[in-house]
Amino acid sequence: MINKERLLANLNAMQTISTIEGVPGINRIAFTDEDWQGRNYLIKQLKELGLSLRIDDFGNVIGRYEGYNPNAPAIMMGSHTDSVPQGGNYDGLAGIVAALEVISDLKESKETPEHPLDIVLFMCEESSRFGSATLGSQAMRGQLSRERLQTLRDKKGLSLYEVLKERGFNPDTIPHAKFTTPLKAFLELHIEQGIVLEKTNHTIGIVTGIAAPTRYKVHIHGTAGHSGATPMNHRHDGLCAAAEIILAAERIAQNSKPIPVVATVGVIEAAPGAMNVIPGEVTLGLDIRSISAEAKTRATQDILQAISEVGHQREIPIDTTLIADEMPLMVKDSMIKAMETVAQAKQYNYMTLPSGAGHDAMNWGDYTDVGMIFIPCRAGVSHNPAEAIDIQDLVTGTKYLKDLILYLDQQ
Amino acid sequence: MINKERLLANLNAMQTISTIEGVPGINRIAFTDEDWQGRNYLIKQLKELGLSLRIDDFGNVIGRYEGYNPNAPAIMMGSHTDSVPQGGNYDGLAGIVAALEVISDLKESKETPEHPLDIVLFMCEESSRFGSATLGSQAMRGQLSRERLQTLRDKKGLSLYEVLKERGFNPDTIPHAKFTTPLKAFLELHIEQGIVLEKTNHTIGIVTGIAAPTRYKVHIHGTAGHSGATPMNHRHDGLCAAAEIILAAERIAQNSKPIPVVATVGVIEAAPGAMNVIPGEVTLGLDIRSISAEAKTRATQDILQAISEVGHQREIPIDTTLIADEMPLMVKDSMIKAMETVAQAKQYNYMTLPSGAGHDAMNWGDYTDVGMIFIPCRAGVSHNPAEAIDIQDLVTGTKYLKDLILYLDQQ
Repeated sequence: MINKERLLANLNAMQTISTIEGVPGINRIAFTDEDWQGRNYLIKQLKELGLSLRIDDFGNVIGRYEGYNPNAPAIMMGSHTDSVPQGGNYDGLAGIVAALEVISDLKESKETPEHPLDIVLFMCEESSRFGSATLGSQAMRGQLSRERLQTLRDKKGLSLYEVLKERGFNPDTIPHAKFTTPLKAFLELHIEQGIVLEKTNHTIGIVTGIAAPTRYKVHIHGTAGHSGATPMNHRHDGLCAAAEIILAAERIAQNSKPIPVVATVGVIEAAPGAMNVIPGEVTLGLDIRSISAEAKTRATQDILQAISEVGHQREIPIDTTLIADEMPLMVKDSMIKAMETVAQAKQYNYMTLPSGAGHDAMNWGDYTDVGMIFIPCRAGVSHNPAEAIDIQDLVTGTKYLKDLILYLDQQ
Repeated sequence: MINKERLLANLNAMQTISTIEGVPGINRIAFTDEDWQGRNYLIKQLKELGLSLRIDDFGNVIGRYEGYNPNAPAIMMGSHTDSVPQGGNYDGLAGIVAALEVISDLKESKETPEHPLDIVLFMCEESSRFGSATLGSQAMRGQLSRERLQTLRDKKGLSLYEVLKERGFNPDTIPHAKFTTPLKAFLELHIEQGIVLEKTNHTIGIVTGIAAPTRYKVHIHGTAGHSGATPMNHRHDGLCAAAEIILAAERIAQNSKPIPVVATVGVIEAAPGAMNVIPGEVTLGLDIRSISAEAKTRATQDILQAISEVGHQREIPIDTTLIADEMPLMVKDSMIKAMETVAQAKQYNYMTLPSGAGHDAMNWGDYTDVGMIFIPCRAGVSHNPAEAIDIQDLVTGTKYLKDLILYLDQQ
């Protein structure tokens, strides 16, 4: 039986480790002492379950529960150990405690699957420290170049390379290292970080795809001027141009059908920023996502076209810098079908939905069959001390993860 | 003869005083040592012209050149001594050196007008230090309450009250003090701080009115959320609401006819300000100006109405805080007619135009007849180290000021 108390015990132990006096929320910022204490606690749990451990030079951990066929490819499950600053205790960790509980339950009931089961602890999934997300799983996939290890730096100026060295790893091996263990599937359980499951009263979300961001900085070179002395028809107001771009991005995303696209301007800076000066230089941070690379590309092109038209009409030079362009993951139809079959057979209250947020799982789509399970989180809040779940939803999600593993094990 | 060299000598002396090593431009920030050294230099010039001085408890200075009728009301002229941080040497100072030069010229040519001529040096016209403009002339008019003296504070937290005390004044007298000297007129020469004179090749601007700002802070209480995980139709994006407001303000100002209104959002802050988070709380600084109180009120009401509609349509609470509501000044037809008569008689290359920027003159419209003269500044740039004039334009402006004084003296 999936044991709620065991799930809670692990969550609570990690909460204690990740709480810093005087700082709200959970603080397991990648490679900090709190993150490392949390990782050590989880490694201890893997060992207590009798799993054999492998640790790579990025700090990622894999614990193996052997199946009865040692030559069969493994079913891997897991998520990330780190949190954003002042985050919540379920983002990432929910998927790890669920994986631990699945193994605990199998051991208790003395069930041995045919395939080995691997629990993976990914390091450094959050972009908070180094400005780039899912770095641990990228390292496993051989996608972290020497250059990125050196150029990705935290706010103190420490490079990822230096931080890995400080933790006792040899980062020089990372650009060449590649995860080569054969896998049958990779499964990640995660909180939704959105409001769809809660609003529609579903407990299990079967993820149809993982959106990945395309990001631009938009530099609008308007002309600053005295807000009183510059007639309206003599202005090249950078902020008015920005406003048109913000609304164009919103409109283009809203009109993206049938596959949804979301577009967000989350960052705006307008200089000089005085009540009596027309803004000249304005910078926007634009984030565009979809689970479909084609839909994302189409919306991106439309938005860039709109930006160009705004610049032309207002006679304001505007340039754009591409700062991220990640490939989204479409979950294979066969996996969605398997997940739905399990959900229907055992009468889970489920729905299918896309993931707007990025996840480690998206780095595994070209390696193995990926399945992703969402459970609800309260009011869609995450990356925030107010992040919360109903523990019963995690129990249900963990049961479903186990049922799905046992189903895939027989395919 | 108006003497270009004397004008330049005063400008150059003030430039030297106001230049801080390593800081661009002119720095006579109100009540700082540089401002005070500049004021001392100008007081010395007033004394050398043999003018009798009065100094009030805000530091404003009046120097009188007696006319032959001691009972006649004075014609006052002047401007402000202070500058913005990293400003130019002509904003304010042009009007003072012109006034000094008019008296020098009259003395040299042994002309004595009927009316006394007062040169006024206004303190603290720029809002840079205490966030509020034309404080010196407001103090003269008895419009500075004890409360404002205490609550207006600079970035270091020093109150205007404390700063005045430090300069040896007794600020307790200010709320009750009122300028009571009878005036026939107040005349201020100032650089345009706009591009109209330069673009249309005019040397003299006869100002038809001085726009004064109405200012609001607009607080948009959107809902922050994950930029990937929140579908477009579940968003309450504070920045998209802000964009609609920015464009509504622009459109309403553009459509204000026949009397122009300008509306500017010069300040925007969007929290939390991350690429992957939909902005929730957004704050705008809105500045609306016109020389007509009615036109300004109408535009303001339309913009507030638009803000309310944006909030309603997007289901986002928005509240507004009025932070300034100054009365614009319409220059009297009789003064405009007098100024045009002088300009035509002496064939000045002039035009009439409104002032978008606020000036000390606007505090004097209910006390005496106000006339304001603009001279061109290069590319409309001011409040900037690049502020520049053609010295010949200042010579012409000063001549015109003298001609206007002698004309009004005979009316």
